[in-house]
Amino acid sequence: MKERQFIDWIRSRTALEPETVPVGPGDDCAVMMIDGKRVLATTDQALDGVHFVLSEHGGSAAGRKAMARNLSDVAAMAAVPVAALATVALPRSARTSQAEDIYNGMREIADRFDCPIVGGDVGVWSGPLAISVTVFGRTAGNGKPVGPILRSGAVPGDAICVTGRLGGAWRSRRHLTFTPRIEEAITLARKYEIHAMIDISDGLAADLHHICEESRVGARVAAEEIPIHEDAKLAGPETQDALSASLGDGEDYELLFALPPQDAHKLIQDQPLGVCVSRIGEILPGDRVSLVGFDGKDQDLLPEGWEHATGNGD
Amino acid sequence: MKERQFIDWIRSRTALEPETVPVGPGDDCAVMMIDGKRVLATTDQALDGVHFVLSEHGGSAAGRKAMARNLSDVAAMAAVPVAALATVALPRSARTSQAEDIYNGMREIADRFDCPIVGGDVGVWSGPLAISVTVFGRTAGNGKPVGPILRSGAVPGDAICVTGRLGGAWRSRRHLTFTPRIEEAITLARKYEIHAMIDISDGLAADLHHICEESRVGARVAAEEIPIHEDAKLAGPETQDALSASLGDGEDYELLFALPPQDAHKLIQDQPLGVCVSRIGEILPGDRVSLVGFDGKDQDLLPEGWEHATGNGD
Repeated sequence: MKERQFIDWIRSRTALEPETVPVGPGDDCAVMMIDGKRVLATTDQALDGVHFVLSEHGGSAAGRKAMARNLSDVAAMAAVPVAALATVALPRSARTSQAEDIYNGMREIADRFDCPIVGGDVGVWSGPLAISVTVFGRTAGNGKPVGPILRSGAVPGDAICVTGRLGGAWRSRRHLTFTPRIEEAITLARKYEIHAMIDISDGLAADLHHICEESRVGARVAAEEIPIHEDAKLAGPETQDALSASLGDGEDYELLFALPPQDAHKLIQDQPLGVCVSRIGEILPGDRVSLVGFDGKDQDLLPEGWEHATGNGD
Repeated sequence: MKERQFIDWIRSRTALEPETVPVGPGDDCAVMMIDGKRVLATTDQALDGVHFVLSEHGGSAAGRKAMARNLSDVAAMAAVPVAALATVALPRSARTSQAEDIYNGMREIADRFDCPIVGGDVGVWSGPLAISVTVFGRTAGNGKPVGPILRSGAVPGDAICVTGRLGGAWRSRRHLTFTPRIEEAITLARKYEIHAMIDISDGLAADLHHICEESRVGARVAAEEIPIHEDAKLAGPETQDALSASLGDGEDYELLFALPPQDAHKLIQDQPLGVCVSRIGEILPGDRVSLVGFDGKDQDLLPEGWEHATGNGD
């Protein structure tokens, strides 16, 4: 069961009217028209044993992550979160304090972006903890609307940029504490002509593939330009191990985006975000996604990430 | 862990601005203002072993129910569903065909109401099947808006009415095949002054309590007037068993509502819905909810339903 295949299957069966649903499944958020207004919506779950380990990380971290993942999807569209809903399936063994922890964890990060939790559903069952969150958004900018920025707008010649540093987010538990790049995304969309954007949840390699598939383009990134996180070095002793981690680990929740080279040039000089932006490659015609290694050699970069001869690619 | 207590705890911690979120947690849908337009949203989960039994009912029935429960919450506001999102946590043992069945089950009932599934998330984990659905709605009526109808508008003197027949929905599997009363609710809201409405998921007794708590009123219903479903007779050999089932079983997804007595009189005469509407009692001052039994005696009707001396109340 590959999620991507399943989404493709769903899309093939979904005939959406562009007037009511301009953006359907397959982007970070859906975009709907409700009474003539654009409403964005995204939903993502956080499951015990997959996205967190309840016994290790606790309910508050689980709730926070469930909410933050969705806020990050709103950021990926350069949109503004408006409200959230959540369902929680609690293990029968859970105490009331754990349910409160989960809620408090959600609130902590939602409050940071003035995103009230307006509804939800709590159930108790024999399974592990499952949290599902839906966040609505609106386009940013009053008067002069900004975005939403889709995955599908990259064109050959665009520069590829990324915020922050990548790799090792799970090992270092950064995946539980990251702050969604909502403000950064809006600044980017206001000041530069961002053609396509995604948040890095599956990993740089996989998410770059998502942009390329939706935009029907190829891409080349350079190992030397990839901002490898300190935490990625936990993956192994070699530089190649850390590179692998930065390409394949995922859970970074940084912004990956494409923009015209002159805008990228200005952006890299301006560095207007508080977090560093790196220019890591370029969009190309075709459908090949490749990595120029430290040795200068161009090789295929698969969605699964990249494994050097002796590494495990995590 | 009582869901009601937890929702109360959440509400006590939620300071919503009425300008942005006119209706927060505690009603069938939340109501938000997005760019000056009212958007309704509701979320509910369907869990294996709680809301369905996957091995017995199959994926399609599970998906259908997850969607239908949410559409029923939109009906309870007399609103129109616009779009849905869903997350699915699939057991590791699930086959691709099961995921497709779940999706097809959701689509079957969503399509019936022109409610496209615009986004979602599928994950595989070691737990049982968990489905979470969010549905957005808009107010009904073009030009002359109808609703949304809340739980909180009942006033003493109102008549209490209910659509259809109640009880035995789980045993007979009606809970897997019901059609949300969306069209019926809109017709009611268009033609009559509906003060408060809810869909019966927890059971007539519990959901009547919900209306009374939100409206700060009491109520009295008459056993003789309650439309007991044929399926409720599966609960036991006595009339009292069937009455218990109709009060406590839940999962009927019928509409329970309060309206002025003269409107109720007209409604009962008109019977405009295709499904029969019954007048079962009245809203009273205070906070007592009571049942006039077949013996004419007035007794407390608890949210848990009603158990006659020899019955089990199920």
